[in-house]
Amino acid sequence: MALIVQKFGGTSVGSPERIRNVANRVLREKARGNQVVVVVSAMSGETDRLLKLAREMHRQPPERELDMLISTGEQVTVALLAMGLEALGHPARSYTGAQVAIQTDSVFTKARITNIDEHRIRADLDAGRVVVVAGFQGVDSEGNITTLGRGGSDTTAVAIAAALQADECHIYTDVDGVYTTDPRVEPRARRLDRITFEEMLEMASLGAKVLQTRSVEFAGKYNIPVRVLSSFEEGPGTLVTCEEVNMEEAKVSGIAFNRNEAKITMIGVPDCPGIAYAILGPVSKASINVDMIIQNVSEQGKTDFTFTLDKSDFDKAMEIVKRTGTELGAEKVEGDCRVGKLSIVGVGMRSHAGIASTMFETLARENINIQMISTSEIKISVVVDEKYLELAVRALHEAFGLHQGNN
Amino acid sequence: MALIVQKFGGTSVGSPERIRNVANRVLREKARGNQVVVVVSAMSGETDRLLKLAREMHRQPPERELDMLISTGEQVTVALLAMGLEALGHPARSYTGAQVAIQTDSVFTKARITNIDEHRIRADLDAGRVVVVAGFQGVDSEGNITTLGRGGSDTTAVAIAAALQADECHIYTDVDGVYTTDPRVEPRARRLDRITFEEMLEMASLGAKVLQTRSVEFAGKYNIPVRVLSSFEEGPGTLVTCEEVNMEEAKVSGIAFNRNEAKITMIGVPDCPGIAYAILGPVSKASINVDMIIQNVSEQGKTDFTFTLDKSDFDKAMEIVKRTGTELGAEKVEGDCRVGKLSIVGVGMRSHAGIASTMFETLARENINIQMISTSEIKISVVVDEKYLELAVRALHEAFGLHQGNN
Repeated sequence: MALIVQKFGGTSVGSPERIRNVANRVLREKARGNQVVVVVSAMSGETDRLLKLAREMHRQPPERELDMLISTGEQVTVALLAMGLEALGHPARSYTGAQVAIQTDSVFTKARITNIDEHRIRADLDAGRVVVVAGFQGVDSEGNITTLGRGGSDTTAVAIAAALQADECHIYTDVDGVYTTDPRVEPRARRLDRITFEEMLEMASLGAKVLQTRSVEFAGKYNIPVRVLSSFEEGPGTLVTCEEVNMEEAKVSGIAFNRNEAKITMIGVPDCPGIAYAILGPVSKASINVDMIIQNVSEQGKTDFTFTLDKSDFDKAMEIVKRTGTELGAEKVEGDCRVGKLSIVGVGMRSHAGIASTMFETLARENINIQMISTSEIKISVVVDEKYLELAVRALHEAFGLHQGNN
Repeated sequence: MALIVQKFGGTSVGSPERIRNVANRVLREKARGNQVVVVVSAMSGETDRLLKLAREMHRQPPERELDMLISTGEQVTVALLAMGLEALGHPARSYTGAQVAIQTDSVFTKARITNIDEHRIRADLDAGRVVVVAGFQGVDSEGNITTLGRGGSDTTAVAIAAALQADECHIYTDVDGVYTTDPRVEPRARRLDRITFEEMLEMASLGAKVLQTRSVEFAGKYNIPVRVLSSFEEGPGTLVTCEEVNMEEAKVSGIAFNRNEAKITMIGVPDCPGIAYAILGPVSKASINVDMIIQNVSEQGKTDFTFTLDKSDFDKAMEIVKRTGTELGAEKVEGDCRVGKLSIVGVGMRSHAGIASTMFETLARENINIQMISTSEIKISVVVDEKYLELAVRALHEAFGLHQGNN
């Protein structure tokens, strides 16, 4: 008998009919002889409805009260799902985050889980019940209701799986797994049977938005195997797990890309301590998130400093950086919002030489100029003209044999 | 500085606009220098919306899950009201029933309050905050969410007022107080400035549905003055309080009546021990509530036994009682569903003779036949042909000078 934690998002529980489908899916897992804990989000549309009410009361609603309000969304879903399971003849019990003691800090609207008391859930499981827990929410040390921020239900599921030492955590989504790249760009993109936590992190934070980044970090930290599955069709999905020996075969697991990048370069700025902070400090103060940061070796005491950011922040950031450039005595500030970023990701890179050169050779053959390069242990990212982005993805998918299923 | 508990029902908080009105009213009470705790119900329509969802999941939803579901209604309102108060520049904090430890038994959907821990509320009040508490809900000893059943928010308000030893509990409704009788029947009916708990209980349970009976019992038990006020207009309302010396003046405070009565009589039944149970046992087993019960002295070992009940249960009850009549050897069973009940209520009756004779004389003068009479310490009830009910109300209102304001 295995213990499985299942998580269903807002679309999967968007109507009584869909909640009934979820109930059936839960009971199929039970029928395999497993114990099941289900984590659910608010019905799709419900959180927006509540936020609209909040904005009618207050232009900037107090965050404690916002959490009090929107946490009702998941509470409705857990009760309805428990009813649905009971209607199918199976004992079930629903819980809010507070009731199963999902302890968090007090950072309302984006709290972090600090502890979960698994005793109550365990007792219900031992009594043969399905346990239905509200995702996205917790309770702070003073008993205030908190919410975990965007994608928080994934994190709830993984955290409960960790607390219960579950065998697997199943995240049901609208895709049937993690792909080597976006199938809309490369039709031969292939579903991966498995991927490591680290690769998943690189894939997810780079735009393959299947799993919430924090939930993957959590899963990696506590080594909880996470399976990404489709809510709508049957299939094995993709297992996200820790690195295993037989995974060494795969040099590159997937290609992530992001069209929404822009880059800004400060040219000929004096290369002295504190220069990076002098440039990025004002940007960060304006609440603009920076992605890649590159500074090459300096010549004659001067250096060029480049960073990328979201296209939507480009104009605002250019203005700030130009002002900083003048203050710092930079030669000039240049920007380009017609770029895209592409990354090849794979734990195999660690032990396989030549991955980078294959990448660069492939891009050269297609006549695609590489504007920036940045690497980490398991990924190589390049920035190219956005018009070549999709061509680059397809060429690299081919070059690394990703559609052939070496994974 | 007084401590006031205010309670607003579903209609008063039915939209963001109305919740803003409530916020303004709360702050007017604060502006008088008082501390305020506000208890609110779910927005009107919300509970029905949730019950509809529940019925789509389960024909007879499990009651624990039903409470989990519908308790979200009040949780939404408290958060929105706290936002509304903050938007007006006043610190406020919302709480669920569980958070302020409104302990109840575990009888889901109709739980009873066993204890309230006032410390958290007190701390917020001392910090100058308005405290907004979800009505209608509590938490049992195992941490399950419970609801208090019909009119439960009134009970929450009174229970909190008792726990905090509040100076007054204000119940805002769609009427501006308690009247001597229904103004739709007697246009000269007058708002009472004050009424005792006992009178209020008799008035309420007899059909003047302003306050929930349980909340009045609670208020009487802990001696919490309750003021019935209008949500929509200013005014002093009616103060429900314990008996005071100056109330002795009022012989009769009001006239309650109920059109929905029917009566059933078993004639010539052997007068022996256990006969009342033999007749009413089967009725009660069929979940039929009985109102008045009258048995007169017996003649020659035989007696007549009469009871009244709701018109809607008449046919079902007649069938049962006829069967019982045959078993018991009664002469016959008669029924009439065209009757009405009328009661004059007043603590003054205790010390004033002649109230009953004035009542009977008045009805005789109007040629209204009295079919049944039943009395308690502070009320006299009669059953008459339903077509004379309104005439009787008006005649008695006049006879006892109720429109003249001796109260």
